[in-house]
Amino acid sequence: MYQLVERLYPLCRSITGDGVRETLKTLKNSIPLNICEVPSGTAVFDWTIPKEWNIRSAWIKNDRGEKVVDFQDCNLHVLSYSIPIHCKLSLTELKQHLYTIPSHPDWIPYRTSYYKENWGFCLSHEQYTQLQEGEYEVYIDSSLEDGSLTYGEYYLPGETKDEILISCHICHPSLCNDNLSGITIASFLAKSLKEQSRRYSYRFLFVPGTIGAIAWLALNESKVSQIKHGLVLTCLGDSGSFTYKKSRRGNAEIDRAVEYVLQQSGQAHEIVEFSPYGYDERQYCSPGFNLAVGCFMRSPHGTFPEYHTSADNLDFITPEQLGDSWIQCRSILQVLEGNRRYINQNPKCEPQLGKRGLYEPIGGHLADETYRMAMLWVLNLSDGTHSLLQIARRSRMPFDAIARAVELLSEKGLLVEAE
Amino acid sequence: MYQLVERLYPLCRSITGDGVRETLKTLKNSIPLNICEVPSGTAVFDWTIPKEWNIRSAWIKNDRGEKVVDFQDCNLHVLSYSIPIHCKLSLTELKQHLYTIPSHPDWIPYRTSYYKENWGFCLSHEQYTQLQEGEYEVYIDSSLEDGSLTYGEYYLPGETKDEILISCHICHPSLCNDNLSGITIASFLAKSLKEQSRRYSYRFLFVPGTIGAIAWLALNESKVSQIKHGLVLTCLGDSGSFTYKKSRRGNAEIDRAVEYVLQQSGQAHEIVEFSPYGYDERQYCSPGFNLAVGCFMRSPHGTFPEYHTSADNLDFITPEQLGDSWIQCRSILQVLEGNRRYINQNPKCEPQLGKRGLYEPIGGHLADETYRMAMLWVLNLSDGTHSLLQIARRSRMPFDAIARAVELLSEKGLLVEAE
Amino acid sequence: MYQLVERLYPLCRSITGDGVRETLKTLKNSIPLNICEVPSGTAVFDWTIPKEWNIRSAWIKNDRGEKVVDFQDCNLHVLSYSIPIHCKLSLTELKQHLYTIPSHPDWIPYRTSYYKENWGFCLSHEQYTQLQEGEYEVYIDSSLEDGSLTYGEYYLPGETKDEILISCHICHPSLCNDNLSGITIASFLAKSLKEQSRRYSYRFLFVPGTIGAIAWLALNESKVSQIKHGLVLTCLGDSGSFTYKKSRRGNAEIDRAVEYVLQQSGQAHEIVEFSPYGYDERQYCSPGFNLAVGCFMRSPHGTFPEYHTSADNLDFITPEQLGDSWIQCRSILQVLEGNRRYINQNPKCEPQLGKRGLYEPIGGHLADETYRMAMLWVLNLSDGTHSLLQIARRSRMPFDAIARAVELLSEKGLLVEAE
Repeated sequence: MYQLVERLYPLCRSITGDGVRETLKTLKNSIPLNICEVPSGTAVFDWTIPKEWNIRSAWIKNDRGEKVVDFQDCNLHVLSYSIPIHCKLSLTELKQHLYTIPSHPDWIPYRTSYYKENWGFCLSHEQYTQLQEGEYEVYIDSSLEDGSLTYGEYYLPGETKDEILISCHICHPSLCNDNLSGITIASFLAKSLKEQSRRYSYRFLFVPGTIGAIAWLALNESKVSQIKHGLVLTCLGDSGSFTYKKSRRGNAEIDRAVEYVLQQSGQAHEIVEFSPYGYDERQYCSPGFNLAVGCFMRSPHGTFPEYHTSADNLDFITPEQLGDSWIQCRSILQVLEGNRRYINQNPKCEPQLGKRGLYEPIGGHLADETYRMAMLWVLNLSDGTHSLLQIARRSRMPFDAIARAVELLSEKGLLVEAE
Repeated sequence: MYQLVERLYPLCRSITGDGVRETLKTLKNSIPLNICEVPSGTAVFDWTIPKEWNIRSAWIKNDRGEKVVDFQDCNLHVLSYSIPIHCKLSLTELKQHLYTIPSHPDWIPYRTSYYKENWGFCLSHEQYTQLQEGEYEVYIDSSLEDGSLTYGEYYLPGETKDEILISCHICHPSLCNDNLSGITIASFLAKSLKEQSRRYSYRFLFVPGTIGAIAWLALNESKVSQIKHGLVLTCLGDSGSFTYKKSRRGNAEIDRAVEYVLQQSGQAHEIVEFSPYGYDERQYCSPGFNLAVGCFMRSPHGTFPEYHTSADNLDFITPEQLGDSWIQCRSILQVLEGNRRYINQNPKCEPQLGKRGLYEPIGGHLADETYRMAMLWVLNLSDGTHSLLQIARRSRMPFDAIARAVELLSEKGLLVEAE
Repeated sequence: MYQLVERLYPLCRSITGDGVRETLKTLKNSIPLNICEVPSGTAVFDWTIPKEWNIRSAWIKNDRGEKVVDFQDCNLHVLSYSIPIHCKLSLTELKQHLYTIPSHPDWIPYRTSYYKENWGFCLSHEQYTQLQEGEYEVYIDSSLEDGSLTYGEYYLPGETKDEILISCHICHPSLCNDNLSGITIASFLAKSLKEQSRRYSYRFLFVPGTIGAIAWLALNESKVSQIKHGLVLTCLGDSGSFTYKKSRRGNAEIDRAVEYVLQQSGQAHEIVEFSPYGYDERQYCSPGFNLAVGCFMRSPHGTFPEYHTSADNLDFITPEQLGDSWIQCRSILQVLEGNRRYINQNPKCEPQLGKRGLYEPIGGHLADETYRMAMLWVLNLSDGTHSLLQIARRSRMPFDAIARAVELLSEKGLLVEAE
């Protein structure tokens, strides 16, 4: 996963343009992504697909002809969606188009101006303070023209048409945690799910933030009702502990599943309530959809100083954190996959497990305490109203033990699936 | 407000009589109060309006003819509802009619005997211990005769017939916190509400405790169903922090509103559960009515030693506490006034706020974070089921910001009121 | 109660056999127990009544003919349900049939093998380590033959057919806390309930654990729906604080009643959630019955080292703990007996208690504060939806005070029972 991050890191992504296309093409090497183009000007609910932005080069030269800021050095240097410009101006005029972070003088900020035409440069505060009075030549070789918005979609059919949505934003340039981490984990989840049997169908969306999610929802409204659970993935590579932001519903199955998996992980973590600010869960959880979609993160946006700066680089994330994030996501999906309801076929008193070889008969000294307890819990609560996740939560037992107990009991005919 | 308390302090109030009439006449100077008389003997539910009690003078003389206790000095000296008497008796006989507070020897207690004919004097324990053996002459020039019970009512119509009830008891003689504070705040709330547009109609009741509230409910039963929210106001001038006693329902809108306003005030405060002891909320919350009426106080009855003694005087309350109590009451009523439900007209995904000038478009650096968040919360939860108070509570934002966001969004046609 | 424990202690009980019969006969001295026999081979749900086991003697002799282990010394020495055997074997072979507790070398463990034919001896680890190489003679004079399972039942009719079930297991040999304590308390509860008027009917079951409860449920299925509340009694003589394990429902009236009584007792106690492991609540709370039956204990099984060992003897329990356990059980049953719903006949405003002599009329100085508050609570909440237990819980008042208030108010016609 870390290698995929390294490969995608140099590309200059934005909400449209070739950086996004290049990113999706790279992902297509490992998963059969469907790459979709939505033309500029297309109405998507209250919004309109903007013009496509591409950039080739950009710099600021001082009056000695030296490049003092150069897009080649770092693609954060240019305000995303800067219009093309080539002019000379004084330092005072130039400064109105410069963005820095005085509190972290060696970091370059990441800034955008998607919906208001503008141009600008982002630079370290150190660079900024060294700029001397004089005339500057500014050049941005960008284009902002009719084109299209590009997103990637991968639909993986399962036994049922009920879907789990995995969504991540792909619009940030060279920023690792936000959101090459989410992109990478989504793509590796897709890769592994492809190889297993699936009760649910899965839909992976790799979309530019906000406008991409809105475009998908607007153009695929008929599919929305299939989405039963979902996760927005972001900021999953840093060294912070896990944070899960609940869906707007607050008590959806996905909310319970994530909470359970994080509890069982034994790791410190935080469960936070839904709020209408953040990532694309804002759109999925808008009142007209109100989908059961939460947001799975480590350190949330805005809580770490490296957020939206050049310090969110390859050093800020680690293979270990990425790997552990993937493991927790897998566990969450496994819980959803296995979260069925069963009916105890022998509901009056306990069935005699011993005569079926389901446990060692010497009272008081049992070989496999965990499975025996899991069997008793499953039998006791399998009245058709309790899901396995509910049984696992109530018994505080690992989901795997519960699922294994279901298998053992089903083999002996003591349990059948509900419905 | 403090000046009004000073003006009302000397009057000798009881559950009936001229002291109450004088008090209501004084209030009528600032609000157009309707003064109602209910004749003695009138049946009001399980109760009967008692005879009217008035008192002119009362004293105890020792055998040297010196007045050792005199009603002129303090109207607490006489047991309220004492029958007329003029006789001579020994100290031993006299003592059966004397009330003191041994633990606060310089305070005079406040005592009543409304429903059992009796007479008595209240005095400081210091006075009591100085009484010497001998014959005493006792004189109470009171009358207990058919007359009427007097209460004040002020009905302020609003846009709807739904009412907010503000009730306070007016039966205590020279006691400031209990309840000239409540009387004063109710009257100043009425004065200010008169000058503003009102969604709700308001009913202010200035009634003698228990029997007055019962009388109003019995004689106005057809109006009761209009009362949607209510507050009993008492003990609002002392230096204690706020206490709100919830309605019997426990989760009524008034309960939520007071809780929210006190939380937002940043002041220490206590929310206590309903109990069937206290002030007239006992009647409003009796099971046959079960109105959404709570009781708003600073230090509750019985929790401060000055309670029902001569020490609950003009020094015990301050203009500052009265003022702050008024401010919190106003805020509570403003929350109820503004607590409507809206429907987001663009429920599928977020509307594009930027193109409507609703926020500064440079990503990541927004001018007015608070209003922007308030707008997002209002849009996200305005599905017709969430009231603005619910939105304010869930977002932990000031109600004013939520209300301002509603205004901005409504102006742009993004929101309409529900129903 | 302690004397009854002493009398029952020496008997060798198991899930069937003469030890159980002897135990029930002893109980029959004080309560008119119905002793029932269920023949071996009878199908009871998923189970079959096993053969009846009886034992006369058993020993192990070393090669010098000395009895190194003898059933006469302690009836825990023989693995319960050991088949008859008489043979000679080496120490190594013998050891496969020996059970000890190395961590408590002077205690004898209690072990069973009901459903798999086997034989064995339990002994102290000290005895075990002294066994020397050589040939041993093993003799168990037991019988395992068609016979019957014996249980005791005592049905005590009340005003209604609604039943309270009291169940305890009688299958353990010389173990005091588990469960001569439960047997004794159940039998003394029966004795005292017999002497009082009862709203509920009571069913006392003295059954062998698991198979006995299953047998009763299978053979009396038509009676099960009469059981409204129930308690399994066990481990009630040790010095630990009380533990109540809730019914599977978790919020049944019995759960609330026990919680309330333990809170009011002022003693440390623990309320634990239902789990499908423990005593016969496992059967009563199986999903096909889901009865409102909890388990009342002091130290729960498995939490004290003496559990299922010879150290659970007459020294491990005390008359004081037994007595206090009985008192709490009585209180719980009294709460259930008295937990009715009433309707305030004067629901609009408070009735005038004073004119009915229900309290002293001098305001502010009341003789009997507790009963007055209890009357106000009962009047306020008696709207037909609140039970007396709910009123007691909400008011945090003793159930006795609430019940006394009901009496006083009913006498005055202010209250009638609901329905």
